[in-house]
Amino acid sequence: MSYRIGSGIDFHELVTGRDLWIGGVLIPHTKGAIGHSDADVLLHAICDALLGALALGDIGVHFPNTDEKYRNIDSKILLKHCIDLIKEKKYKVVNIDSTLTLQEPKIKPYVEKMRETIAGICEILVEDVSVKATTTETMGFVGREEGLVAYATVLLQKV
Amino acid sequence: MSYRIGSGIDFHELVTGRDLWIGGVLIPHTKGAIGHSDADVLLHAICDALLGALALGDIGVHFPNTDEKYRNIDSKILLKHCIDLIKEKKYKVVNIDSTLTLQEPKIKPYVEKMRETIAGICEILVEDVSVKATTTETMGFVGREEGLVAYATVLLQKV
Amino acid sequence: MSYRIGSGIDFHELVTGRDLWIGGVLIPHTKGAIGHSDADVLLHAICDALLGALALGDIGVHFPNTDEKYRNIDSKILLKHCIDLIKEKKYKVVNIDSTLTLQEPKIKPYVEKMRETIAGICEILVEDVSVKATTTETMGFVGREEGLVAYATVLLQKV
Ligand SMILES: [Zn+2]
Ligand SMILES: [Zn+2]
Ligand SMILES: [Zn+2]
Repeated sequence: MSYRIGSGIDFHELVTGRDLWIGGVLIPHTKGAIGHSDADVLLHAICDALLGALALGDIGVHFPNTDEKYRNIDSKILLKHCIDLIKEKKYKVVNIDSTLTLQEPKIKPYVEKMRETIAGICEILVEDVSVKATTTETMGFVGREEGLVAYATVLLQKV
Repeated sequence: MSYRIGSGIDFHELVTGRDLWIGGVLIPHTKGAIGHSDADVLLHAICDALLGALALGDIGVHFPNTDEKYRNIDSKILLKHCIDLIKEKKYKVVNIDSTLTLQEPKIKPYVEKMRETIAGICEILVEDVSVKATTTETMGFVGREEGLVAYATVLLQKV
Repeated sequence: MSYRIGSGIDFHELVTGRDLWIGGVLIPHTKGAIGHSDADVLLHAICDALLGALALGDIGVHFPNTDEKYRNIDSKILLKHCIDLIKEKKYKVVNIDSTLTLQEPKIKPYVEKMRETIAGICEILVEDVSVKATTTETMGFVGREEGLVAYATVLLQKV
């Protein structure tokens, strides 16, 4: 009953004219996240936490932002790939906890859908996926709505 | 012997004319933390980590800052409520680790009291509660003393 | 089979005329990290995570930046000291995950050497040490190359 932990953090700028994908969910907002892929900050942080738990590198190593193959790619595909790597190593996800820091919009209406989406890809229960959110109380680049940050921690267990 | 992990992060602005509560301890300082409750950044991060470990939502869901009931509330009451939720789910806290980032004041003289306070509410030993602190080396909004940030991680175990 | 978790975060300013030590590796760059010791942000975050997991204080308590003994000290010595404290308490490291946030340079070419260095000091396998990296997408003090930040999480197990 061997455990491992991983943690991830991801950053994206917010700009007008882009979609805002968070946790696999498209969120209506005046700004969207910029990046090589669909710039889903939460899924990226979770990917990094999963990879980190088994020391498999990071998202930049697996999905280079210089590779045309990943341009505008749906980050759910990236998360699925990370989960497949975990399964290959004979590990499963015990639970995922995460926190979004963003000033706006309120993401509470979308949290259940995010949890379902992540749980589905990770083949775990919705009860094993946590998505929390907080503002930075208007401070820093998140407070100025220049960008958003996601933090994720995961606990894995040997199958 | 089933484990779960959680992590939390919390932010508050520092202003003159407010008290500075950190880890359940009132700290003499020229500035205090602003917020709907007593703005105890450390207890809030721990609350969020506890809630997150069992995917019970976040502190904003449980204690909305639009609810008059929580105005200036002692965050120790919020932490107690989170612990009660954990116990209801038949989990106990194995250990809590946390880090405060703030430029001033030095919180070292208050760390033992914080640990005792948190351990008391969480019904664990002082040895199972860690409170660390660091400056940001004068960088960012924490370095400019506009605010402070707390990070917490918790390990829970099924009773 | 008792587990504990710890987490650490560390900050250093980047200036010209200093070496850039990260993860025990000297990295050629136009700027280096400033601090009382060699300012190795990654090793410091790992030290803090190790100390935090067993509630042994923080790096500032163990190695005060007012102590001449630690001026320009090799942080590998500090990490070794933390590991010795862990061993004294009859714990061993299960795995370490970490993330560097810095805008430049690319640290990918140095990651393997960092992992080997950390694993050697911690007496664990390279497969049990993860070093990830991300930019902040040019945002904040990290994005402006004023400084860098490291985050570490560790899982310990009673021997
Ligand atoms: Zn990303
Ligand atoms: Zn708060
Ligand atoms: Zn340091």
